[in-house]
Amino acid sequence: MKPDIIKKAMEYRELIDVLMSDMKHADIVLHGGNVINVITREVYRADLAIKGKHILVVGDSEKLIGNETLLIDVNGKYMAPGFIDSHMHFESSMLTISEFSRLSIPSGTTTLVADPHEIGNALGSVGMLAMADEADVTPNHVHLVVPALTPDCPQLETAGVDISSKDMEEMLNYKNIIGIGELQGFSNAKHVYRNTPEIITDLVASTAYARSIGKVVDGNAPELFGNELAAHIISTGGRCSCHETTTKEECVEKLRQGVYVFMREGSTQRNMAECIRAVTEEGLDSRRAILATDDMVAEDLEKLGHMNEIVKRTIAQGVDPVEAIQMVTINPATYFGLEDRGVLGPGKLADIAIISDLNNMIVDAVFIEGNLVAARGQMVVDIPQYVYPDTVKNSVKRGPISKDDLEIKASGSRATVRCLELIPDQNLSGSLEFDLRVQNGIVLPDTSGDVLEIACIERYGRNGNIGKAFVKGFGLNSGAFAESIAHDTHNIIVVGTNLEDMTLAVNRVIEMGGGLAIADRGRILGQLRLPVGGLITDELTGSEVSKKINELENTAKNQLGCKVHAPFMHLSFLALSTSPKWKITDRGLIDVENFEILDPVK
Amino acid sequence: MKPDIIKKAMEYRELIDVLMSDMKHADIVLHGGNVINVITREVYRADLAIKGKHILVVGDSEKLIGNETLLIDVNGKYMAPGFIDSHMHFESSMLTISEFSRLSIPSGTTTLVADPHEIGNALGSVGMLAMADEADVTPNHVHLVVPALTPDCPQLETAGVDISSKDMEEMLNYKNIIGIGELQGFSNAKHVYRNTPEIITDLVASTAYARSIGKVVDGNAPELFGNELAAHIISTGGRCSCHETTTKEECVEKLRQGVYVFMREGSTQRNMAECIRAVTEEGLDSRRAILATDDMVAEDLEKLGHMNEIVKRTIAQGVDPVEAIQMVTINPATYFGLEDRGVLGPGKLADIAIISDLNNMIVDAVFIEGNLVAARGQMVVDIPQYVYPDTVKNSVKRGPISKDDLEIKASGSRATVRCLELIPDQNLSGSLEFDLRVQNGIVLPDTSGDVLEIACIERYGRNGNIGKAFVKGFGLNSGAFAESIAHDTHNIIVVGTNLEDMTLAVNRVIEMGGGLAIADRGRILGQLRLPVGGLITDELTGSEVSKKINELENTAKNQLGCKVHAPFMHLSFLALSTSPKWKITDRGLIDVENFEILDPVK
Repeated sequence: MKPDIIKKAMEYRELIDVLMSDMKHADIVLHGGNVINVITREVYRADLAIKGKHILVVGDSEKLIGNETLLIDVNGKYMAPGFIDSHMHFESSMLTISEFSRLSIPSGTTTLVADPHEIGNALGSVGMLAMADEADVTPNHVHLVVPALTPDCPQLETAGVDISSKDMEEMLNYKNIIGIGELQGFSNAKHVYRNTPEIITDLVASTAYARSIGKVVDGNAPELFGNELAAHIISTGGRCSCHETTTKEECVEKLRQGVYVFMREGSTQRNMAECIRAVTEEGLDSRRAILATDDMVAEDLEKLGHMNEIVKRTIAQGVDPVEAIQMVTINPATYFGLEDRGVLGPGKLADIAIISDLNNMIVDAVFIEGNLVAARGQMVVDIPQYVYPDTVKNSVKRGPISKDDLEIKASGSRATVRCLELIPDQNLSGSLEFDLRVQNGIVLPDTSGDVLEIACIERYGRNGNIGKAFVKGFGLNSGAFAESIAHDTHNIIVVGTNLEDMTLAVNRVIEMGGGLAIADRGRILGQLRLPVGGLITDELTGSEVSKKINELENTAKNQLGCKVHAPFMHLSFLALSTSPKWKITDRGLIDVENFEILDPVK
Repeated sequence: MKPDIIKKAMEYRELIDVLMSDMKHADIVLHGGNVINVITREVYRADLAIKGKHILVVGDSEKLIGNETLLIDVNGKYMAPGFIDSHMHFESSMLTISEFSRLSIPSGTTTLVADPHEIGNALGSVGMLAMADEADVTPNHVHLVVPALTPDCPQLETAGVDISSKDMEEMLNYKNIIGIGELQGFSNAKHVYRNTPEIITDLVASTAYARSIGKVVDGNAPELFGNELAAHIISTGGRCSCHETTTKEECVEKLRQGVYVFMREGSTQRNMAECIRAVTEEGLDSRRAILATDDMVAEDLEKLGHMNEIVKRTIAQGVDPVEAIQMVTINPATYFGLEDRGVLGPGKLADIAIISDLNNMIVDAVFIEGNLVAARGQMVVDIPQYVYPDTVKNSVKRGPISKDDLEIKASGSRATVRCLELIPDQNLSGSLEFDLRVQNGIVLPDTSGDVLEIACIERYGRNGNIGKAFVKGFGLNSGAFAESIAHDTHNIIVVGTNLEDMTLAVNRVIEMGGGLAIADRGRILGQLRLPVGGLITDELTGSEVSKKINELENTAKNQLGCKVHAPFMHLSFLALSTSPKWKITDRGLIDVENFEILDPVK
């Protein structure tokens, strides 16, 4: 037998000795609390005894208390299994796993299932395995689900690295990687099936392999019903989750067809209140209803909390507190096959959230593997700053651009142009047309009409593509801003009122090796360096990042006149070539539904 | 990628083509039925489309119907996932897997999880792997969970083969074997811990290995609570089932501690009505409540049905029909990790029970992997008779005994003897003492007082042991009967009014190579040959076996005066050395609670 199995067996043997002999005792007994039993959906008084990293028993622990036992009084408080965030991206917070965890753990979240598909697009397996390495050093449990395909739309955009079924064996057998992440390729089922059927064949090869070695496959099936939803489910190997469900009807349909519905409630996308109606109004069995955040920014983690906040909002929708807690404990643990947690019982990991107020989900203390790691909202153990290796830095591999590179050309004195329409708080965008002035063969943006130029610059040194078009909705009256976050391939995206400031902002992002930059009238007004894949900083803490983002957003608002909140996030999603209607990639203006690249000038 | 993964991927690709293209169609559409959705706990009208062995979609199937599609009208009927029996022993029926399946499938049971621990005790891995081979040839799904330990009590009895952790790798990686069966060794926690702690160490090594390769571990924790239950759960690797729960309080406690409770309801042991009160009276979440039969005899399968009957009885206890069906579908499929079934949805196996009357659970038709296999209570596809290889026959490896071998000796004219007490319909037995007459140094049974002799004869050629004692409760007034079924080691057990008939019956069992025999006044009155391991016949059908058993039971009753029903079954459990109070094995009279071998004469 392998050493890790022998070690496990010895751990269990030791637990049995403590329970059965009169000579040995628990390390810790949580005394006099109310246990939240997420198996039976009950709350009742019970002690909880811990030895090493495991729970010994939940119940009368009198005989397990010895002189060396640490007795902790939890009278009047509630003990719940540590919470699981079933789908999230560290990249959305721009933080390392360590910095994210420092903010997340005190709110009771002990397991994170992260999809590193941003860094996967930028750096391929090198980036994702580096994250899997970092996952080893934090006190919480961090698991990764990796993309089966990058870029999402191979004909329409350029990623840093192309991932396909050939890469699955290496990645899916690497430590801390438990499956395939959101299967975007088939999410827009009809169009993908019609235009790139070979992608489906490759995806199914990946998912069949993943399922054969017991790994999960997270799907992603926005707005799919009936046969299309069925085809999507089958493409995942017949068992999947979806975290892009936005209506009650969709939620009912997906639960009925066997999908584990991750009701999303993060910093931007908030779908829980609508989805939960499948439970509160239709009375469906909620065993496959799960809560997830998808995207959380540092500021929200600091101010609001993490899964405790999402559970609180779910309770506020009329769900019984224990049922809501099931959605972040036993339900996801069952889905992911994380058999060692998600419930409080003998032999399970002692991952425990101590809650003082159930309806408000105020978390007093957090144990992970039997260690007290947080109390009163603060970590009580140290998480050192994690510095990434150079292999995942310097991901921007192109020289500076010149103003000429951004010019959109046309003949004559006026031109009809195609223009993306930004829709606040949505990934979806609209399509517009405008008549613009042409000067010296170059189409000019119309700042007064809020028709600005937008561009996407390939940054991985693969082809030097620059896609260009127009955009309405930012409302800038001056300057430009750029970033190396541009979903999902993460080339450099820029929007501006003039080509000079756009060029300046883009070149600053290139100089920094990735990040955010704002330029106005030939000056850089602000910047944030993101050295890890151009997406994450390993130089700042969560607080420092949220302060910096606030500064940049205020600059965009106050000095450039930007009219949307969270302008960098909105800009980054205008490159998302899987979500309708028009988007911008390094290949150009994309008609998502028709899988077509359009000329910005008609 | 391995060929089986490529094959799976191609199957899925084909299903996607049918759903998405306009050119391809379903093989079968079940039209106009009511689907039992065990995920959402709903019943609603929906079609169900099948391609090959998989479900395409549950819902509107209009577009999937082509000229070649077989349209089956199920108007007014219910479609449920095929039922799972989560814990059963083929040996209890004395039938091969093929004959058992022929009786079981028409009642809607499509998956059987069998524990071959009887044949495992007799023949070791040779016998169990031979059963795993047979599991390949039947149309239903048959999985095995194998014992981690034989015999149950190594110091107190002799099995045909000794199994321990050293055997796990070979067995647990063999086809159709999905885990470890009922972990008997630690079921009587206190006594095992005190008397044979080394067994626990070995069991934990086995379970840690099983869990490390994703296999299940079925426990068996009768009457355990608190720390002892916790120790038992941990000995299974922290996740187990229990099918020996007999009271509501036990059921509540086990569900709370994380045990999957298999509520037993078979031919003999009927615990469901008591256990289900945890759900009906206490309102516990039933996701870990599961139904299982443990032991079913052929006659009951023929006359009553199988899991449909158990579900019907559960409904009769006040459980909602869909919730009761969850207990034989999604709940066990989740426990066993059988992700390809247990629900009706896209990509799942088309294992379907068509039900015409929900409260009475009348099953009209059964599909397995898309094939109609049974209709109106009868198989519509052939299951050929399965003949076992010689390697699992001739398991009785000893010569005939003589009358002298059975003599219990004492000096003087009277002796105080120890006597097992048979308790009807229970595995438990009592302990009695009687004063008997001694003639020529031999203690004589007292037929008029119903104090008969009982003996257990080692039959594997390992040591020739013969254990002897007295028994009260059978009420024979003449003759003897013997059998090679004697739980769990399955030596030859015999009870009788006189040593001559006992010897005759035992020697007939030896001559047959295993089976049942009745002798009276020097003549054999009846017999049944069980050539496979001395436990199973591959020569008779289920109907023939139940007829033969009836004949033998009538003979015992009418000609020997036997006062207990099912006398062979009651006799066989008097050797079960894990269940209190006194039992008989080849080593002698066993004091179960004290792990002691007692002299039959005080």
